[in-house]
Amino acid sequence: MADLVLDELLVKASDRSYNLKIFNNLDKLVHEVKSFEKNTFFIIDKKFNDLNHFDTYLQQDNTLLINSSEKIKTLEFAKDLILQLKERGINRYSTIITVGGGTLQDVSQFVASILYRGVDFVFIPTTLQAMTDSCMGGKTSLNLDFFKNQLGTFYSPKMVLIHTGFIETLDPNELKGGYAELIKLLIIGKFNYFEELYSALNKDLYNLETVKIHSSKALQVKKFYVEADEFDLGIRKILNYGHTFAHAVETVVENKISHGNATALGMNLANYYSLKNDLISSEFYNLHYQFFYSFCDFKNIRKFKNINGSNLLKQFTQDKKIKSNGNIDLIIPVSDTIQVKEVEIDKKLENIVDEFLRSLL
Amino acid sequence: MADLVLDELLVKASDRSYNLKIFNNLDKLVHEVKSFEKNTFFIIDKKFNDLNHFDTYLQQDNTLLINSSEKIKTLEFAKDLILQLKERGINRYSTIITVGGGTLQDVSQFVASILYRGVDFVFIPTTLQAMTDSCMGGKTSLNLDFFKNQLGTFYSPKMVLIHTGFIETLDPNELKGGYAELIKLLIIGKFNYFEELYSALNKDLYNLETVKIHSSKALQVKKFYVEADEFDLGIRKILNYGHTFAHAVETVVENKISHGNATALGMNLANYYSLKNDLISSEFYNLHYQFFYSFCDFKNIRKFKNINGSNLLKQFTQDKKIKSNGNIDLIIPVSDTIQVKEVEIDKKLENIVDEFLRSLL
Repeated sequence: MADLVLDELLVKASDRSYNLKIFNNLDKLVHEVKSFEKNTFFIIDKKFNDLNHFDTYLQQDNTLLINSSEKIKTLEFAKDLILQLKERGINRYSTIITVGGGTLQDVSQFVASILYRGVDFVFIPTTLQAMTDSCMGGKTSLNLDFFKNQLGTFYSPKMVLIHTGFIETLDPNELKGGYAELIKLLIIGKFNYFEELYSALNKDLYNLETVKIHSSKALQVKKFYVEADEFDLGIRKILNYGHTFAHAVETVVENKISHGNATALGMNLANYYSLKNDLISSEFYNLHYQFFYSFCDFKNIRKFKNINGSNLLKQFTQDKKIKSNGNIDLIIPVSDTIQVKEVEIDKKLENIVDEFLRSLL
Repeated sequence: MADLVLDELLVKASDRSYNLKIFNNLDKLVHEVKSFEKNTFFIIDKKFNDLNHFDTYLQQDNTLLINSSEKIKTLEFAKDLILQLKERGINRYSTIITVGGGTLQDVSQFVASILYRGVDFVFIPTTLQAMTDSCMGGKTSLNLDFFKNQLGTFYSPKMVLIHTGFIETLDPNELKGGYAELIKLLIIGKFNYFEELYSALNKDLYNLETVKIHSSKALQVKKFYVEADEFDLGIRKILNYGHTFAHAVETVVENKISHGNATALGMNLANYYSLKNDLISSEFYNLHYQFFYSFCDFKNIRKFKNINGSNLLKQFTQDKKIKSNGNIDLIIPVSDTIQVKEVEIDKKLENIVDEFLRSLL
């Protein structure tokens, strides 16, 4: 089945087009990394490096090891990173290569986009979420104090190097954490991809060959959306399916719930909204709910008493998708498509959220 | 002669193309400003506003008055500005309209480029330098601690609104401060524009009709360069004529010399480099020197004892145009063209700088 996995994908963007190169062999990845010339600076996730000793392949003095967490997504940390890179001699003609997950990518790709008005950026994703979703599309994100993803740029990488073998180094929780974004893309992409993954993972939740194949499919779905709407002005909003709720949940619990779990919760909440408004069938709702329930820690979410309709809706008013009239664009399923719907932030919405939260068993 | 002044100029860029609209009547400018819908936030230079009371045309609660200076070009101030805008209710669909000079533009256009990954930005330049040069090209700049213009983005405005009448509100020093960039563009553009301005201003240094006409010509020269090389990878570097020296001077004296004077000094220093390397005639050198001498405060520069070859060359190593081999791209005249030349930062260059500084009478 390995031949179904892509080995290269070109993504078109207005600042520059770039290739995703997909390897299934670490030596080949390292060979590619070494092809970059001397003037290269590495930013590596410390936890990943402790496990995989990636830095042993590299010049130590050009390498920063970073303890990644949501807390580093700030202007202050970005500046700190820039000063550290300057101290090591980075210049306008340098390349930054980041090895890590979506969070480290967010801050380091932002840094690459503003340092000298842009230095070359290469990304090597190490988590399933980063490999299937965030590695593509050129969005960078920083938080503004307690407000999530309020700042950022659109900045295309020079190249993305994916080693599918890194999936095997993830512990079960990390792996499951990436399923939500993968599944999101498969649902959005239609073509029965979701049903295929559903039936395969229902037999074996840790079938990595299945995951790799569907990661390739997810990348192709994402490519369609980011090329069709590079600057997130229309159809690309669909990719936010589940994310308005997810960001509100993450803020309310100060990131004590993983992004994967929060996104899964958010998609099911969006589904519940559609169910209550007769936009989807109960079969659609139940199929998705049961699938996510099989690997998401929904029960744990009930323990956070401050996750409730009132608190989540308060966060909506800080979401960057809020409109001038006070409404918000929710991304919801309508029969078998995913659509953008402008929704009032009112008591009716709050009740639907609370009802859904009570239904989590 | 008024018909020679442009009233509109379209600039093409990859993120979006935009119009410069040029008015010679304040009412028409205000009418255009009022055509923007409600969701608009104004950032206005306080000094300009104290003189012109521009805010009286606007809703007060959407207006920030800023004391502009080189000190505000920091990530810290950018964040502060963003928090103030958020407090006043800015959202993703808002427009920021900045009224001021190049410095206020630098920081507020940067803010517009990163807030919600980009909100619409309209610029109303109030200084000659901003009207003829910085308003076009989409470059934003921040300083990094003591290092000048190390950070920034490429972000096109939605529109630039120029009211040529603002030139008349500038005091003689502010007006002369803008001549350097204007003349730089005319020299680079060739077509004898420089000679025309030279002979007109030699008769009357404050002939504003002449200045307005040549501002239009300068904008057309700039349009050629920014469209030909949007991301500053090749020919656009020519626009940095005088600026490597100017930035070094400004840093050494902590911005106690105006940008206009520093740029004028920088261009003459570049000319002197070419003279000493037999790349231009002494006629070229003397013509330019005498012209700049007529309105630049070159004598004052001699008072700053720390402006010397050794100190300036030290600053070059922090310039973002420094190369991996330690050389720097200088922009210098070669016969009647302006060219990029890679130069070693060595004792020979230091001596040329010191010789030039001693020649300032």
